[in-house]
Amino acid sequence: MPKINEKRMLADLRRVAQFGAYRTGVHRPTYSKEDMDSRRWLAQQYEAVGLQAHIDGVGNVFGMPRSERRSLLIGSHAESQKYAGWLDGALGVIYGLEIARTFAEAPDCAGLPIAPVGWADEEGHYVSLLGSRSFVGDIEEAEIDRAVNVDHGLPLREALFGAGLAGVSRSLVEPGRYVGYLEAHIEQGDALETSRKRIGVVTSVVGIWQYSIVFHGIQNHAGTTRMAIRKDAGVAAAMLAMAVAERFPKVAGPHSVWTTGRITLEPGGSNIIPGKAEMLFQFRDSETPVLERLDAGLRELVEETATKTGCRADIERTETGKPWQMDPAFQAAIENAAARHAPGAYVRMPSGASHDAQVVARKLRAAMLFVPSIGGISHHWTENTDDADLVLGCQVLADAAETILRGESR
Amino acid sequence: MPKINEKRMLADLRRVAQFGAYRTGVHRPTYSKEDMDSRRWLAQQYEAVGLQAHIDGVGNVFGMPRSERRSLLIGSHAESQKYAGWLDGALGVIYGLEIARTFAEAPDCAGLPIAPVGWADEEGHYVSLLGSRSFVGDIEEAEIDRAVNVDHGLPLREALFGAGLAGVSRSLVEPGRYVGYLEAHIEQGDALETSRKRIGVVTSVVGIWQYSIVFHGIQNHAGTTRMAIRKDAGVAAAMLAMAVAERFPKVAGPHSVWTTGRITLEPGGSNIIPGKAEMLFQFRDSETPVLERLDAGLRELVEETATKTGCRADIERTETGKPWQMDPAFQAAIENAAARHAPGAYVRMPSGASHDAQVVARKLRAAMLFVPSIGGISHHWTENTDDADLVLGCQVLADAAETILRGESR
Repeated sequence: MPKINEKRMLADLRRVAQFGAYRTGVHRPTYSKEDMDSRRWLAQQYEAVGLQAHIDGVGNVFGMPRSERRSLLIGSHAESQKYAGWLDGALGVIYGLEIARTFAEAPDCAGLPIAPVGWADEEGHYVSLLGSRSFVGDIEEAEIDRAVNVDHGLPLREALFGAGLAGVSRSLVEPGRYVGYLEAHIEQGDALETSRKRIGVVTSVVGIWQYSIVFHGIQNHAGTTRMAIRKDAGVAAAMLAMAVAERFPKVAGPHSVWTTGRITLEPGGSNIIPGKAEMLFQFRDSETPVLERLDAGLRELVEETATKTGCRADIERTETGKPWQMDPAFQAAIENAAARHAPGAYVRMPSGASHDAQVVARKLRAAMLFVPSIGGISHHWTENTDDADLVLGCQVLADAAETILRGESR
Repeated sequence: MPKINEKRMLADLRRVAQFGAYRTGVHRPTYSKEDMDSRRWLAQQYEAVGLQAHIDGVGNVFGMPRSERRSLLIGSHAESQKYAGWLDGALGVIYGLEIARTFAEAPDCAGLPIAPVGWADEEGHYVSLLGSRSFVGDIEEAEIDRAVNVDHGLPLREALFGAGLAGVSRSLVEPGRYVGYLEAHIEQGDALETSRKRIGVVTSVVGIWQYSIVFHGIQNHAGTTRMAIRKDAGVAAAMLAMAVAERFPKVAGPHSVWTTGRITLEPGGSNIIPGKAEMLFQFRDSETPVLERLDAGLRELVEETATKTGCRADIERTETGKPWQMDPAFQAAIENAAARHAPGAYVRMPSGASHDAQVVARKLRAAMLFVPSIGGISHHWTENTDDADLVLGCQVLADAAETILRGESR
């Protein structure tokens, strides 16, 4: 089995964290100077391994083996969340680089081609999962034309122009060129830590169903309008949130999660009964029948709330993400490698977060590995993982990659 | 009894609605060009009646009788809400002007001095009830120094400078100069309309107690954080809103009202469990013991919610408005006049909204009269009142003023 260079891998993780360093984390939004610098640095590292590096029209960085054999894609997204952690994305990218190097150096792995990749904008500074969606052919030019930065509104086209990517073609997957795709990521939750496991073998990536729910009441004076005649849209929103909290546990699956991320009351004045309330609501599960059950339950509760409060309700599903099952043979390859390096300290688990792997899985066999997040923290600059776990994760993924490329996993 | 000039009064109401005309309403925020133009126009009308007009340092417009006898202040606020109705404020101001004119013209009323007034910024574009609070000595210069426009942030000092009021002294009440204060206003609710009454004799003005309630949960990833370990501040806010909706009716008075005007979840992203939730909450009642009961009930529910959800709660009372009882003899004068002009079509009622009368009442005997709001609508450009009711209200107030000035109401 090929042995990774632990020190080199950790040094590269720390090197890439200098692009946009922020406290102990990073701020490296997609297409910022820091992000593009880190992508060019990555391309240089790929070249140094003997790979043919290129950055495509949405910023995906590929290191293509100069080989006729089918290669194994390994990577994650290169940009970071805002003012967030140093490992979210970078971990999987550097694992891909390190495994490519290890295989290139190991005499008995020379014929096993690794294609490392750094996807663009998984985090959705412009469009969530943009790079991997572009790769599998799921982005039209019109969507790119329309997209703007969620924070400052810069059109994506202008950002691509500024990053030097205008006119560069987007790379589309040719499924025949690849054996499959592997991605490592921090867990972003506390399931591994609290169960004292060090490796998560991802079984599926959840589907996210997202909703905009609007209640229309009657806006009126908060002093002169008697309680008996009010139609308060804010009360309707609170009633729905509580109904969900009480009823969803009865229809949810064991891993289902649901969240009201935002409630907006209009007009929002202290002296005015809200005439309109908008809720941003989502739930996630890895089983489509569970998602459908939650959808039906939600619609029932919305209707019930509208009836009880006299406020008209609109519910719109704005996102219908498909859950994706990871490839069973790839899962087994990861699990067997984990059993060798960390006996008893690995577990199969669904991923509650979206990842590029679920997009790539539409075209290629794919699987994922998680390492623990200390305190379950992510999307924050304090995000971290023990060095020993960082090293273990890379070695397990390298072993799994060898198994897969040798064709031992079918 | 002095008979008002109906046509003249209605014409003046329509004239003043031209300052900042917006659809069928007005947009005349305090110290805007339109507002200052209307105040100068008002001062000219006062002068034309033979009164000594002046605009004081916060924009209050006074028409002082050239008489040694104690006068009766009659008025309301001259500015409007944003893009709102033509009668809110203007009604009471024009009644004051018309009654001053009627008394000046009526031979038997010549010795009964009316002092009409147009207060500044009752609507709180800078500071709620600014003009009347300044008049009763309840505003420090430091508060004026600090105040800014709630919409565009312009410092009040700069607005006063722009309005030509910098360096102009603020008029302070000399209680010995006045018999008392009368104010007419649209009801801003539907109590008169639904009970088919045409005059409301205001018994009291409610006190408004206002709160900022903040729940502190733990911000986390909406996909990877298990339901069991969440501390969702948004769920805490919804739980409190529902607890209030269920429990307040049990401790409230018959006229109590309560409103959550705003809920802000932070950070407000669809993928993030809210770590912080802020609610803007208020209640109103005209009885201090009821206000205290609601305060205690609220604090209990906040604590209960914090315990249930594991979210720490902060509650701060940001406003503790005192309810004010209107002068009983003045109320009787209005009621008797109403009984003459609209037998059976008047009712005693508390005011759910704040008014300058509750401020002036701290220094002078005071009372208020309401006319119906069509459909209960106010703070909207469609706000309106039947012409017949506009005329009736003015005549009733004129009669009451005569009774009061002749000393028949003790």
